[in-house]
Amino acid sequence: MTQHNADRTPVTVIGLGLMGQALAGAFLRDGHPTTVWNRTAAKAEPLVARGATLADSIGDAVAAGELVVVCLTDYDAVHKLLDPVGEALDGRVLVNLTSGTSAQARETAEWAARHGSAYLDGVILAAAPGIGTADAILVYSGPRPAFDLHEPTLRSLAAATTYLGEDHGLSALHDMAVLGVMWGILNGFLQGAALLGAAGVDPAGLVPLVRQGIGIVTDWLPGYAQQIDEGSYPALDATLDTHRAAMEHLARESESLGVNAELPRFIQALADRAVADGRGGDGYAAMIEQFRRPSGARP
Amino acid sequence: MTQHNADRTPVTVIGLGLMGQALAGAFLRDGHPTTVWNRTAAKAEPLVARGATLADSIGDAVAAGELVVVCLTDYDAVHKLLDPVGEALDGRVLVNLTSGTSAQARETAEWAARHGSAYLDGVILAAAPGIGTADAILVYSGPRPAFDLHEPTLRSLAAATTYLGEDHGLSALHDMAVLGVMWGILNGFLQGAALLGAAGVDPAGLVPLVRQGIGIVTDWLPGYAQQIDEGSYPALDATLDTHRAAMEHLARESESLGVNAELPRFIQALADRAVADGRGGDGYAAMIEQFRRPSGARP
Ligand SMILES: NC(=O)c1ccc[n+]([C@@H]2O[C@H](COP(=O)([O-])OP(=O)(O)OC[C@H]3O[C@@H](n4cnc5c(N)ncnc54)[C@H](OP(=O)(O)O)[C@@H]3O)[C@@H](O)[C@H]2O)c1
Ligand SMILES: NC(=O)c1ccc[n+]([C@@H]2O[C@H](COP(=O)([O-])OP(=O)(O)OC[C@H]3O[C@@H](n4cnc5c(N)ncnc54)[C@H](OP(=O)(O)O)[C@@H]3O)[C@@H](O)[C@H]2O)c1
Repeated sequence: MTQHNADRTPVTVIGLGLMGQALAGAFLRDGHPTTVWNRTAAKAEPLVARGATLADSIGDAVAAGELVVVCLTDYDAVHKLLDPVGEALDGRVLVNLTSGTSAQARETAEWAARHGSAYLDGVILAAAPGIGTADAILVYSGPRPAFDLHEPTLRSLAAATTYLGEDHGLSALHDMAVLGVMWGILNGFLQGAALLGAAGVDPAGLVPLVRQGIGIVTDWLPGYAQQIDEGSYPALDATLDTHRAAMEHLARESESLGVNAELPRFIQALADRAVADGRGGDGYAAMIEQFRRPSGARP
Repeated sequence: MTQHNADRTPVTVIGLGLMGQALAGAFLRDGHPTTVWNRTAAKAEPLVARGATLADSIGDAVAAGELVVVCLTDYDAVHKLLDPVGEALDGRVLVNLTSGTSAQARETAEWAARHGSAYLDGVILAAAPGIGTADAILVYSGPRPAFDLHEPTLRSLAAATTYLGEDHGLSALHDMAVLGVMWGILNGFLQGAALLGAAGVDPAGLVPLVRQGIGIVTDWLPGYAQQIDEGSYPALDATLDTHRAAMEHLARESESLGVNAELPRFIQALADRAVADGRGGDGYAAMIEQFRRPSGARP
């Protein structure tokens, strides 16, 4: 059992799903007096065996921590649980690591302020097993003094603990952007695995080549961010015309092997619009203009 | 000027675009007698200054090399240039690094065989500046003896020179799969940059966080490949239900900030179908079933 440390901030973790269990485990490992609560109490058992205290009620749970960390399925669950015990939050710092939109984060900040609580909205850039390791990044937005006060404690969750700014919506915005890239990789990989599978080729051989492709394009991103900032998109690597032709190959290949071609045809249609806008000789970053345009709007 | 080396295989490079110039430059650097040809002859000048020979005609160019490397916009250009000089290929090895489909590669192999030429279809997993460095991977498919014979020469282009198999279509299939992942990253990044831009946030701050997200998901791929192979998709990291909810956040966030929400809504629709198929509690690899299903087909 972990020895609690008298100089460690008492923390509360509400929500013991895949992620909440990892969070509470990381606080315990660093010797923080840790109180936990979960709708399904049985999920607390391994943590209690490691020294956590299982609160009898959500109100008791909130009262036990100077720092109250909540990580639930969604903001509806957060409000369902916390709205009835808002007064207990008075004078505490609430850190919400539940995924949501920037609007939900800002609304929750206002709600917390009405109950005298400082609110940090956080986002976890890691899967549950990465919590407490060098592989995790957690980002926070909200009042700087609350972040500074609890940064040493929050570092139990991730060495890379980053403050984004006062606007509570910043964490969600960055989360959405990162998740979009992650889904892009996953969907691209599954498209390729389906393609190879249909051709009778083992997709395992794809992994090292995909890793190479990922490395190449990751190195392009700082330059693309700069081009977006400057609003000019010279082709540093390949032109949109070249990309557009290769997208057509992927779509035709998918169709002729009888696998789903919707994703290739969709991205090709986006590139078509950029080419129609006269961007064929530019680099890929010129596609930002398509992503900026509200859905359904045409130039 | 590079000193040609008598024991180095004479090579020909046809096509001196962004990529062809890099290829010819890498052969020159390693002392290969290098003949070049390009429709727009002026592009040969920097290479001639470094010791390359500019052929007077495409036929002379083919005749000068034991190994003939062609890298043009597309297969139409390849056939337009090479069909009239097919006989000159007799006894040579033709390496085509032009992007295309597996069907185009197999057709070109048959055409080359009719002219007594061994044919390797290759793919470049690198941007032009990476050619000749440790950052490039080139993969080849076609007859193993032709690859083995010229592998030492082809290593001038990339230390990572990989043979995929006899089927000429393999290079294109792997290329398409890798490119799909690269576009996934680029489109995800541009969606995120558009989102942050609309919220008045500099997208440069996104790059390190995106890099982190890319690292996380890249590490998931070997496990996903294994799950696809085994046909069972337990949630190792997050469930499809969790992903699906976050996709909804990205779409709502995009809509409320007035940026394009087509990509988020599209991938959400794919995930919706997987959830409707009863896969909500599984991991992301279960989405392979959606990618395998021909466009428009429903279970
Ligand atoms: N898993 C990851 O890799 C990961 C990564 C980054 C971010 N996140 C985010 O972290 C959050 C939690 O994810 P997770 O993976 O831990 O999810 P999970 O395993 O599904 O756990 C969900 C948690 O929410 C609780 N909950 C849901 N609805 C509730 C309600 N109406 N009332 C009370 N409790 C309720 C559940 O309680 P019960 O146990 O009683 O069902 C459980 O504690 C999500 O917002 C997710 O997007 C997860
Ligand atoms: N650039 C990259 O990063 C990259 C990476 C991987 C793969 N590739 C692939 O490599 C190939 C070449 O790409 P690139 O970037 O070098 O393209 P590029 O800079 O646009 O060069 C195209 C080349 O094709 C020639 N060409 C096109 N149509 C022709 C025709 N009808 N007759 C004769 N010559 C013709 C051009 O000749 P002119 O000079 O006379 O126009 C030029 O040499 C493409 O298949 C591309 O997908 C490129």
